[in-house]
Amino acid sequence: MSVTQPIGFRAAGATAGIKPSGKPDLTLIVRDEAPGCVSGAAMSFTRNCVVGAPVIIGREQRAAAVQHGRIPRAILINAGNSNAATGEQGVRDARACMAAAAALLQFEPELVVPSSTGVIGRPLPVAKITAALPLLVASLSRGSAADTAACAGIMTTDLVPKHALETLDIGAHRVTIGAIAKGSGMIAPRLDSVAHPAAPSATMLAFITTDAAIDSPTLQAALDSVTPVTFDSISVDNHASCSDTVIVLASGPGKMPAIKPGTPAFDSFRFMLQHVCWNLSEQIVTDGEGATRTFEVLVTGTTSDDAARRIAREIINSPLVKCAIHGRDPNWGRIVTAAGNAGVPFDPNRASLTLGEVCVYRHGMPVIEALADPRLKAELAAKRVRAKLDLASGPGQGRMLGCDLSAQYVSINADYTT
Amino acid sequence: MSVTQPIGFRAAGATAGIKPSGKPDLTLIVRDEAPGCVSGAAMSFTRNCVVGAPVIIGREQRAAAVQHGRIPRAILINAGNSNAATGEQGVRDARACMAAAAALLQFEPELVVPSSTGVIGRPLPVAKITAALPLLVASLSRGSAADTAACAGIMTTDLVPKHALETLDIGAHRVTIGAIAKGSGMIAPRLDSVAHPAAPSATMLAFITTDAAIDSPTLQAALDSVTPVTFDSISVDNHASCSDTVIVLASGPGKMPAIKPGTPAFDSFRFMLQHVCWNLSEQIVTDGEGATRTFEVLVTGTTSDDAARRIAREIINSPLVKCAIHGRDPNWGRIVTAAGNAGVPFDPNRASLTLGEVCVYRHGMPVIEALADPRLKAELAAKRVRAKLDLASGPGQGRMLGCDLSAQYVSINADYTT
Repeated sequence: MSVTQPIGFRAAGATAGIKPSGKPDLTLIVRDEAPGCVSGAAMSFTRNCVVGAPVIIGREQRAAAVQHGRIPRAILINAGNSNAATGEQGVRDARACMAAAAALLQFEPELVVPSSTGVIGRPLPVAKITAALPLLVASLSRGSAADTAACAGIMTTDLVPKHALETLDIGAHRVTIGAIAKGSGMIAPRLDSVAHPAAPSATMLAFITTDAAIDSPTLQAALDSVTPVTFDSISVDNHASCSDTVIVLASGPGKMPAIKPGTPAFDSFRFMLQHVCWNLSEQIVTDGEGATRTFEVLVTGTTSDDAARRIAREIINSPLVKCAIHGRDPNWGRIVTAAGNAGVPFDPNRASLTLGEVCVYRHGMPVIEALADPRLKAELAAKRVRAKLDLASGPGQGRMLGCDLSAQYVSINADYTT
Repeated sequence: MSVTQPIGFRAAGATAGIKPSGKPDLTLIVRDEAPGCVSGAAMSFTRNCVVGAPVIIGREQRAAAVQHGRIPRAILINAGNSNAATGEQGVRDARACMAAAAALLQFEPELVVPSSTGVIGRPLPVAKITAALPLLVASLSRGSAADTAACAGIMTTDLVPKHALETLDIGAHRVTIGAIAKGSGMIAPRLDSVAHPAAPSATMLAFITTDAAIDSPTLQAALDSVTPVTFDSISVDNHASCSDTVIVLASGPGKMPAIKPGTPAFDSFRFMLQHVCWNLSEQIVTDGEGATRTFEVLVTGTTSDDAARRIAREIINSPLVKCAIHGRDPNWGRIVTAAGNAGVPFDPNRASLTLGEVCVYRHGMPVIEALADPRLKAELAAKRVRAKLDLASGPGQGRMLGCDLSAQYVSINADYTT
């Protein structure tokens, strides 16, 4: 189970006919209001400066939640059409769907958060969506069937559905976090935050529910603190989408003690939220388009964590490195030279690179005997290849997770719309 | 003909046994000193902060040429081994080869510029190179056979040799510029300049000879002004090499009038040098690893030319865009969203995208009928696909040339060293 496991949430999925394939393409997640509840919402969106209509609307809804306590009660997601590069008409279309859902759910349209993924630059098929809504609303329920249907309705090129579920105890109360996500291509999220409301990167969507009692500003602070080391630390193809979205809704039933900033409860909740977000991030990369294995890069010894992440990002995004990982090729020079392109100056004579347990490059010099080490061959054959680049120049560190580049990636993406 | 067409140059190529394939892998270009000549040299190197030993030495030689008039008399190039990530030993190895060549040529070792391309992190096979040098020096000559041999010795994954030749008249004197280049993968040059001696980006090597009479500072100024709009405006795989190198040698025979900065002669020479560099750049992209077609992106309407080039670079480097070009897929949303990731803010509602002659996106709105336009299909089937993105916000413009991403790129790069 996932999104409907926390108290206060129902979900449903349907086939509205947006996808030519006839697969499920519409999902609704609803938060039910309980008397005395302490509800909250937090959202992060792409930093791409071209954004889908749902992102434009979602940013307004985030501000309303954080600043004015207007907590969304539903998320309406469609796959098959991103409603992006659709101008003002796109915003009107999204609002029409919000209004239709709200009328059935009997609350205000502004409390329905829209989210869309799929082909860019095509008008949203509003009539198909609104026609499917009555049955979708009628089928809202809790349990694993509902979670499965909800997750199916948000998938595009995903081969596997992505769920996460964690619990933590705060005092005598058990708090549950559930989540669904989609994402396989156009994956290189760089999410915004309240502190950085618009700055740029695939379509990944993640919808997280919790029965924690946490208000929007506190929930948003928790989310903003975990996105850099989770969703922003993965890349399939270094192409950030116009639609990347993470939405967290907290239902906070009356009996739950509220989680306040700066408390051990907040730290525990934040830790578990990070765990859920990283779990989803790993699932997304593992299911990356055409990916056969993942590649984890840890960079240490930089002056700052941000510098380390920039170098790690440059490494996992190099097509040459990705092909070498695909081919189990010990061509580590590609890793070192990719690092040198990150725009973060470092001294190669202090740099050392370890693949798995085998040091292949030490203080700027090749370790020739490493190439004959059987552990190197084993590491390169692993489902997850691990590289550690140490620059020996400071306390900074950062990690990124990527995947290999296969011929299948090309075939998936060479005829996506046609 | 190419590098030996200008007066004062000889060249040769040989097989030293560096490449396991047994193909040619060693090239020598020599500038012969004539009495009264006005010679000059200019060089540009990668801005990757991990550089090969030849780049470390070459930067010293550039400074000696520009500041002290010590004009190199030879370029010794090997393929099959980049002599990069080889530490101090790499520098000693390069110097040993320089010394061996200089002894045969009877001038100082410092006048031999080394250049290497190939696998990274392996010791340079000095003994193989020095053993091949006597025959290489003995075979130095002029003419098309020499040019062909010289170009063969610098190739790695190149499928075709790359030559260029242009002439211009300065007064009554005919000036010739000849050039050879290599490059197919690890191509995304961002070359340094005297103004920006180290800042980041494939291995491309270009060696340009001319019988113009032009001193080093003037020649370097000409080269620095053309690299941003030529070599720096192409990308195959967005992975800048540790070895990118452009070297121009001018022989300036005694009778030639010297080209001075700020004169019409300088402008004419600079224009022709740019033409030669762009010609080589186009050849490199067209022969990009696995490439079946090229993709030219012109961005206009930005606040600066640099902003336009940054956006164009983000577009041509997106794997999703490259796959769409490969598949003749009119999925233009990928182009627009790639632009949005360049870190250059713009207003999508002012943006318009034209593919060939067909506008597919106008002022932030999709042009739906464009998808049925037969000219769009024809454009997408062309050997060179042209996109123009206008942001309608300023006088800036920039052009980048990339190529498609094919399954063959993956197979070429998944087993390069093994």
